[in-house]
Amino acid sequence: MRKAILLIIDGLGDLPTPKTPLQAAKTPNLDRLAKNGITGMLSPVKRYLVPGSDTSHLNILGYDPTIFYCGRGPFEALGVGIELNEGDVAFRANFATVKGNKIIDRRAGRIDTETASILSKGLSLRIGNVEAIFRNSVEHRGVLVLRGPNLSSNISDTDPHSTGEVHFCYPLDDSREAKRTADIVNKFTEVARGWLASAPTNKDREKPANILLLRGAGTYSQVPSFFDRFGLHGICIAGGALYKGVAAYLRMDVAIVPGATADLKSDVKAKAETAAKSLDHYDFVFMHVKGCDSAGHDGNFDAKKKMLERIDKVIPILEKTGACIVITGDHSTPVSRKQHTGHEVPILVYGGERKDHVKKFDEISCASGGLGHIKGKEVIPLILNITERAEKYGS
Amino acid sequence: MRKAILLIIDGLGDLPTPKTPLQAAKTPNLDRLAKNGITGMLSPVKRYLVPGSDTSHLNILGYDPTIFYCGRGPFEALGVGIELNEGDVAFRANFATVKGNKIIDRRAGRIDTETASILSKGLSLRIGNVEAIFRNSVEHRGVLVLRGPNLSSNISDTDPHSTGEVHFCYPLDDSREAKRTADIVNKFTEVARGWLASAPTNKDREKPANILLLRGAGTYSQVPSFFDRFGLHGICIAGGALYKGVAAYLRMDVAIVPGATADLKSDVKAKAETAAKSLDHYDFVFMHVKGCDSAGHDGNFDAKKKMLERIDKVIPILEKTGACIVITGDHSTPVSRKQHTGHEVPILVYGGERKDHVKKFDEISCASGGLGHIKGKEVIPLILNITERAEKYGS
Repeated sequence: MRKAILLIIDGLGDLPTPKTPLQAAKTPNLDRLAKNGITGMLSPVKRYLVPGSDTSHLNILGYDPTIFYCGRGPFEALGVGIELNEGDVAFRANFATVKGNKIIDRRAGRIDTETASILSKGLSLRIGNVEAIFRNSVEHRGVLVLRGPNLSSNISDTDPHSTGEVHFCYPLDDSREAKRTADIVNKFTEVARGWLASAPTNKDREKPANILLLRGAGTYSQVPSFFDRFGLHGICIAGGALYKGVAAYLRMDVAIVPGATADLKSDVKAKAETAAKSLDHYDFVFMHVKGCDSAGHDGNFDAKKKMLERIDKVIPILEKTGACIVITGDHSTPVSRKQHTGHEVPILVYGGERKDHVKKFDEISCASGGLGHIKGKEVIPLILNITERAEKYGS
Repeated sequence: MRKAILLIIDGLGDLPTPKTPLQAAKTPNLDRLAKNGITGMLSPVKRYLVPGSDTSHLNILGYDPTIFYCGRGPFEALGVGIELNEGDVAFRANFATVKGNKIIDRRAGRIDTETASILSKGLSLRIGNVEAIFRNSVEHRGVLVLRGPNLSSNISDTDPHSTGEVHFCYPLDDSREAKRTADIVNKFTEVARGWLASAPTNKDREKPANILLLRGAGTYSQVPSFFDRFGLHGICIAGGALYKGVAAYLRMDVAIVPGATADLKSDVKAKAETAAKSLDHYDFVFMHVKGCDSAGHDGNFDAKKKMLERIDKVIPILEKTGACIVITGDHSTPVSRKQHTGHEVPILVYGGERKDHVKKFDEISCASGGLGHIKGKEVIPLILNITERAEKYGS
């Protein structure tokens, strides 16, 4: 049976100013695949809805987020390699700088990973019968997991999402579990502040990492695996913890690719080579490239264009595998908007499919493509169909 | 944040004979917007379903009619300015001419508004503990509202919808409320006939307005407001009571535009100017033009074509505002069919969006537009997305 590669270019879609980055970029390889394949437009979740990266990836990978979305925290935790138990409550965390009661830098001066690792050593502790497990990832980023009985993730963020007052955690419903969990979070925050304040590592920093900000609380619950649902042995090749975490949540394997850094410098070639090699052992590769989304958030047209050109260069590596290739994005992040929008993203399907008249891979050309306008939830059925894995319904 | 104008051209869609009125009409302004914007085809409710104007408008304005449609009566009542209470049962009413027990003219010789106003004075009354509130609107048209405990709108029309026998009102289910309400309607009809028979105003009329025909009974119940659901301060600019009523039902404001008559002579320019001015105080203008639908019902190709050309002339007034502009119809009313049909209607979106290759605004050109084939329920999400108001789902 044929194998498939799904390449998600994060934040791919854009708006014309007067061209989109994808129109402006020199992408001869993507264009060749578009010309020899079939194209269309994808609504990652539903038409005009603005997707988060997490809900979008779930939907594109065949997991309806209205059923399977559990908040960002568990994906981040799984993405940094923490194994979660049923009922664990996980948070995305930031090292930040607080002065009095004001957050003055949400990233503690973009603290380096090594320093953050040293500071992290005192941040896993017990609070009553609850275990608090902290792990830092890249720079100011980290994850907190609370493990114990009667926890709830229906609680507020302590991260104010901007500079300003520190937020306390409060329950978002009247349950005993939410109140208890909010208390534990506040206790953890206090103890963490104490540890960080006394840490010698922080002494000489202009912006000491003296507080942890928490957001995206979610309760982990195991879901049916990607293999059980679709019969595909899948592997994820990504730099960002969130994407690796989504794959781990679906119990795909997650490749370790040195140089996959989930930013504009990520080693895309190394990822493509790992993708190609993985097909010896797997049916399905989910490959994720983050850079275009970051460039979109920064409003940097040239950076987005160049990232697309870097991605284009490694396409032949994927092409040589003979696998079916599906290339799309998880949402639009137009440089003129600097945020996710609900615009469709182009999609191309290459290898054994019908062709259409589209010759370029961009937002305008693909809108008249032969696939028409499809939804995220249709991507895995599409892949099952073209790899001859789809089961017949009826007789 | 950007603002938006939604222009609904009632009964816009048509069939080619061999051209459609929209293809035949000279509409340089609509075509320019199509060329510089993005186009597609809209199924106002769902594909091939023949929409009523009320259900279609609800769906396009983001209110699923399977949940929020309460019958035509309440929209008509709200549209003539009657404030409704929870549980009120409202009807569309016609002054008509009856001879013996036969309706010989369903519009009482298209009685003039002034005469109808005089006759209306005796038509509001009490029946037991129920208040019957009658108000005439334009020519033979009017509204009846029943207000009191234990009423039901699950009752038959007394309007036979053609000339012929007068119909009694009967309950459509076994409930006490439906029986009671049917009795009240019959009692009201009897009292009204007595009053109208004795009215001096009717003496010299060849076709006396001597009966009221009721249809479209609906029970009013308040729904979440348009602002609460979508965060848009909206205003409605329309001539027809039904459209003003739909807007009032969603608790949008309703503009008073002298000369907006909901027919082929309506002052479209005054409406466009009011739309443009309204954007100083509102985020969203819902502008409705009725004439094309009336021409379609009359099977009058030229009238529909001319109405489209009149609408085209005022497009620059909307364009100058700098708002996002969405132009579509609520259904097709082909002149060759003289009734609503389930054909898609063209839609164009202008202002800051992606473009497509379509250069004309008509039923044939827009079918290959970059929006593809969308649904009425997707129009408000589209507007929220392009005006940067859509909220992110997930993170």
